[in-house]
Amino acid sequence: MEYLLRGDICYSENLKTLICKENAYLHIKDGLCQGVYDSLPKELSSVELKDYSGDLILPGMVDLHLHAPQYGFRGTKMDLELLDWLNVNTFPEEAKYQNLDYAERGYRDFVEDLRESATTRAVIFGTLHKNATLLLMKLLEESGLVSYVGKVNMDRNSPEYLTEHTAEESLKNTKEWLSEIPKDWQNCKPILTPRFTPTCSDALMEGLGKLAKEYKLPVQSHLSENLGEIAWVKELCPDAKHYGDTYDRYGLLENSIMAHCVYTEGEELSALKARGTMICHCPQSNTNLCSGAAPIRYFLEENVKVGLGTDVAGGANLSMLRAITDAISVSKLRFRLMDQSLVPLTLEEAFCLATLSGGSFFGKVGSFLPGYEGDALVFHEKRRSVRKQTVKERLEVLLYTGEESARLQAKFVQGRQLF
Amino acid sequence: MEYLLRGDICYSENLKTLICKENAYLHIKDGLCQGVYDSLPKELSSVELKDYSGDLILPGMVDLHLHAPQYGFRGTKMDLELLDWLNVNTFPEEAKYQNLDYAERGYRDFVEDLRESATTRAVIFGTLHKNATLLLMKLLEESGLVSYVGKVNMDRNSPEYLTEHTAEESLKNTKEWLSEIPKDWQNCKPILTPRFTPTCSDALMEGLGKLAKEYKLPVQSHLSENLGEIAWVKELCPDAKHYGDTYDRYGLLENSIMAHCVYTEGEELSALKARGTMICHCPQSNTNLCSGAAPIRYFLEENVKVGLGTDVAGGANLSMLRAITDAISVSKLRFRLMDQSLVPLTLEEAFCLATLSGGSFFGKVGSFLPGYEGDALVFHEKRRSVRKQTVKERLEVLLYTGEESARLQAKFVQGRQLF
Repeated sequence: MEYLLRGDICYSENLKTLICKENAYLHIKDGLCQGVYDSLPKELSSVELKDYSGDLILPGMVDLHLHAPQYGFRGTKMDLELLDWLNVNTFPEEAKYQNLDYAERGYRDFVEDLRESATTRAVIFGTLHKNATLLLMKLLEESGLVSYVGKVNMDRNSPEYLTEHTAEESLKNTKEWLSEIPKDWQNCKPILTPRFTPTCSDALMEGLGKLAKEYKLPVQSHLSENLGEIAWVKELCPDAKHYGDTYDRYGLLENSIMAHCVYTEGEELSALKARGTMICHCPQSNTNLCSGAAPIRYFLEENVKVGLGTDVAGGANLSMLRAITDAISVSKLRFRLMDQSLVPLTLEEAFCLATLSGGSFFGKVGSFLPGYEGDALVFHEKRRSVRKQTVKERLEVLLYTGEESARLQAKFVQGRQLF
Repeated sequence: MEYLLRGDICYSENLKTLICKENAYLHIKDGLCQGVYDSLPKELSSVELKDYSGDLILPGMVDLHLHAPQYGFRGTKMDLELLDWLNVNTFPEEAKYQNLDYAERGYRDFVEDLRESATTRAVIFGTLHKNATLLLMKLLEESGLVSYVGKVNMDRNSPEYLTEHTAEESLKNTKEWLSEIPKDWQNCKPILTPRFTPTCSDALMEGLGKLAKEYKLPVQSHLSENLGEIAWVKELCPDAKHYGDTYDRYGLLENSIMAHCVYTEGEELSALKARGTMICHCPQSNTNLCSGAAPIRYFLEENVKVGLGTDVAGGANLSMLRAITDAISVSKLRFRLMDQSLVPLTLEEAFCLATLSGGSFFGKVGSFLPGYEGDALVFHEKRRSVRKQTVKERLEVLLYTGEESARLQAKFVQGRQLF
């Protein structure tokens, strides 16, 4: 498999440097980017050319945090804060996924729409139900998207209709789930998923930490999202050094994504940095649920890993383009309303978070630098502005206006063309 | 002209009450809403039925503040605060509208896209150029949308390439502009438009106040948007009681829209209330330009008139659906980050701001209550959720996800079907 994509190409080299090239060529071979060229290299003149002249070509977007079973109520029920929102809205809906018919209908919608979105890689919460989670994984495997999916663990402070009762039961279900994942799946892999500390006993955390080591599995969870949640964790785990320690003491911060971290600082941040944990920033969700605004500028200054997530259905939009501009917007309001020591994120930084930075959880993913996997998006703009615009300006318009101004017309994952 | 629209109908009765009816009938006759019925009234059985069963039918959206000549750079250049943003980005672009060819291309794009958007009524800034503004008005007149458009006035603190030099020149141009507007235009009307106090001398303000009275014209301008701007106005007008007084002392707060009011309080707010001024809240623009977050909850408690605006191109999106949810989002961050005495806006309130509340600037506009003008939108949702959803929940999804989840498939203004 070898071809060239021709068009107006944008990608991050790092947090500060966004490369934008007009009418350039991206060479993909054996699923990997080989190089981006200003003009067609002679030695590639016989390679298949996919000509998207005049269109924008970007790396695929990496959504590091979203909940598939919440897709059915996205865009509704935004009037509660986290803990009430879970009890009133989320848990009753997730419980329905015990029913495989319901799960199939819900997950088909989710996977179809995710496939048509700008997302090429995603890290996804299922429910605690083994079979529904396997079904979700099967649909994702078939979609061509690359993903991690977690069967959720929860054994305390959960409603009777959505709990695993004991750590043993939860761990047993998890091992069964892991054993039933077909060995030949290429695109969809498992990730251990303690829901969050309030619903996971120490025994369960300990068991999951051992499983992570034994099976060499990555981990995802939530951390320091909401003030009520944080106070509750303090009560539940009086001996923990900080909320993050409730994971760290069982080895669950390594090879892991922690969503939100709105209130993470001091020792908790040091622990994340020491373990190489990826913080997943979910700006729209943190706004919708009145959680707050995470100090991303501070995390970047501290060289902590950060990526972006939609957090559907705390976030309403599947669009990672929107997540990029939401990250900028929230950082501006945080700056203006609360703390002028942390300047707003730039477009270059926010774009990098959604691609190269978050993509690192998947390996060499999220850029067109040589050796990166061939995840690419082609956007066709509905019209060009009366102004002469640079490629970077057109990218900005796309990020700020999304479906209002452009259509995703081709999508590549690991070099494979999805449409 | 008489017909019925059938579908799932939502409209505001007031700020607190949003009516949502499944499979209902909206009766429109002679351009006015006659009533909404749960079932087809016998006496209307022979009236033409436009059947949009299963689709959402909403009142047309009222965008109270946007800048047509800035449409060409929407979604770009968001890294400066107001005063620098005007000098670096806005003034050079507006200056191009002296060229009628350029103006025609830019304004055609703007009017076409506005026509295809959810907006049925708009209050729009042009540039200071008389002929380009007349051209914009002609295109809007032909579009079928209902609008007010202003030729901008600016006679000080403006670049040499975009100024009217003296109050006399500015007033003379304004009178010529008014005299050249064809008398038979039905849809597009003039509105006096002092840009804002920094660029308008007292003599100009005084002259515009007299013109407003003499010609019985409404007024639009900007007020208390940004901290740097407010400090500058204090320097420029040391004798004014507050920024709002720089308009009020010349009668320019009556029958007027003041955009932003991010920092309006105390005597300034009392003046707006006393004059019946409409505050236009532009949440996305105030975020993008780091201006701040207006205390809309407080304005509503004080019974001041409030509507919504996109403020293109301080705002990037033409979509008033997005403006509704941006208003909610910004109020949540303001609540969480800054001031917990003002609770976030509800969906009912924000929806009302964009329709009934802002619509009052145009008369009985923005609702389906009997006697209101027949402005209606029909949205077709791409899919229904696996969850059973109420009509109100489907409306929420539409507002939060916009083009991601639905297509505007029919649009009516004053009873006339645009498409």
